[in-house]
Amino acid sequence: MAMNKRVLLKSRPKGWVTEADFQIDEAPIQQPGDGQVLVRNHWLSLDPYMRGRMNDTKSYAAKAELGEVMVGGTVGEVLESRDPSLKPGDFVVGSLGWQQYGTASAKTFRRIDTKAAPAQAYLGVVGMPGVTAWVGLLTIGEPKPGETVVVSAASGAVGSVVGQIAKLKGARAVGVAGGPEKCRYVVDELKFDACVDYKSPDFVKSLEAATPKGVDVYFENVGGEVLDAVSRRFNAFARMPLCGLISQYNETNPMGLRHLHAFLTNRVKLQGFIVSDKLELWPPALKDLAEWVSSGKIKYRESIAHGLDNAPKAFIGLLKGENFGKQLVKLA
Amino acid sequence: MAMNKRVLLKSRPKGWVTEADFQIDEAPIQQPGDGQVLVRNHWLSLDPYMRGRMNDTKSYAAKAELGEVMVGGTVGEVLESRDPSLKPGDFVVGSLGWQQYGTASAKTFRRIDTKAAPAQAYLGVVGMPGVTAWVGLLTIGEPKPGETVVVSAASGAVGSVVGQIAKLKGARAVGVAGGPEKCRYVVDELKFDACVDYKSPDFVKSLEAATPKGVDVYFENVGGEVLDAVSRRFNAFARMPLCGLISQYNETNPMGLRHLHAFLTNRVKLQGFIVSDKLELWPPALKDLAEWVSSGKIKYRESIAHGLDNAPKAFIGLLKGENFGKQLVKLA
Repeated sequence: MAMNKRVLLKSRPKGWVTEADFQIDEAPIQQPGDGQVLVRNHWLSLDPYMRGRMNDTKSYAAKAELGEVMVGGTVGEVLESRDPSLKPGDFVVGSLGWQQYGTASAKTFRRIDTKAAPAQAYLGVVGMPGVTAWVGLLTIGEPKPGETVVVSAASGAVGSVVGQIAKLKGARAVGVAGGPEKCRYVVDELKFDACVDYKSPDFVKSLEAATPKGVDVYFENVGGEVLDAVSRRFNAFARMPLCGLISQYNETNPMGLRHLHAFLTNRVKLQGFIVSDKLELWPPALKDLAEWVSSGKIKYRESIAHGLDNAPKAFIGLLKGENFGKQLVKLA
Repeated sequence: MAMNKRVLLKSRPKGWVTEADFQIDEAPIQQPGDGQVLVRNHWLSLDPYMRGRMNDTKSYAAKAELGEVMVGGTVGEVLESRDPSLKPGDFVVGSLGWQQYGTASAKTFRRIDTKAAPAQAYLGVVGMPGVTAWVGLLTIGEPKPGETVVVSAASGAVGSVVGQIAKLKGARAVGVAGGPEKCRYVVDELKFDACVDYKSPDFVKSLEAATPKGVDVYFENVGGEVLDAVSRRFNAFARMPLCGLISQYNETNPMGLRHLHAFLTNRVKLQGFIVSDKLELWPPALKDLAEWVSSGKIKYRESIAHGLDNAPKAFIGLLKGENFGKQLVKLA
């Protein structure tokens, strides 16, 4: 029988992740026990949160263990089932990690309809990143018509959905992204009102020009200098869903939040959140997202790496902002 | 007729306030017009927020103007009234600023009962600072029985009330204050469960020992190093009412919030607030506070400076933490 190629966590990075922190190996495919299924992964999701799982620190989720398969969301096809809820040929979303095959309890999977949307979309716009955008924007950001919503990493899997939902709710959507190509995409294809290039020397001035009425909601994915600039534009009673700090994950001396005074004088609410805390919101979020994608109201883009061997490199590229839209690894 | 002694804002401080930023003068007492009253101030309140009003920056409230009377809350006696709602001899809370006499619309005053509580208490525990504690702790902090509430500036006008309300709600109250004398007061008289001296070299270790189950609510009055230490103790879903940042008001390069990552991984809510935004909450808050003070459930202490001439010095002392409890100036 075929072997199972896997990517293991070899060492915990200090500062920037390197490919040497991962190890690729092969192991026998594990047969399913009672209540379990064996799945062949077709797609692996790469997401910024994975950087935190590589650390040996207390966090909201279990860390990845040294010598074990790296954690990650997957979409695959059921090959064998020992549970009545799933049958061979079903496509499922799960968390099998960075490997070609996986065996787990049938309960840990969700069956998906690959006719309604491509299988890999369930790892992006109609999956965890899309739900993250929906939950953070609508339950913490609560944009009102005419308000200004700024989102960082605006061309990414989460940010691209945030801005498009903001538009659907009647707000002004302003993206922050790295480079003119991503900014053009955000404005021309995603239909944000504006996009500001954080790599440009004119970043702060461009941000001011793009937010003439200040900022009412800042959906934060990156932290660092972008946060510093946006927080100087807050209006009274602004809201800041804190979803990620990707610019700081590999910093041994993270920048933090410099302009705290603005949060006091403007009575800003900052709220950190993790979408897995809000399981009750997944069904309504996924319903909205599926409708918006199928009706063309929400667009998305994917960056696809091919084969597990390329997963570490693609993941490091994601942390550096080299991807464009949702970063995936095609496994089959 | 007597003249009106006043303290004017002479210059906007860069960094630390000095007495030279104020100017004392005398002016004729202004007679009341229709709908106005003339009040002789008995007490002036000194509060940390006044430092912000001295700056020429956008804030939640109008700044103090150069050459004008410094802003501030006052308690005084009505001398003359040209409005049916108030009569001579009534005691009122108002915002007449740093002066002996003031004339303003009767609507801007609230009559107080000096038999229910001493007049000056309406500037402290049953006034703005008490309401600030009530609003921030109960509507943002929302402490639950058994949770740990930490409050900085714990012996101050706001912090002392925060911890005592936390106890009334069944939480563990931990204060942070400057020096052993204040800490003893917080524990022995205010009955907090613990108090940690931020000036001690063992501050971080003592904070850990005082919060064995982590921190669920951090009521923030000071910012800086104290915030840095407390934010490393946050439990999941902690709440941080942001009331003030007194340690940073005179800093030209404020420290900000270093450990932002903790807000993400622990899904912390930080909410800046200003009690004047929440006028609808003053009546229920004042009702609770008056009951708790008269029944002895809430205790308080005052630092009293005598005469307007001493107000600038007392204000600078307040910013340095030299006061003990509510800082007042006795004017009559």
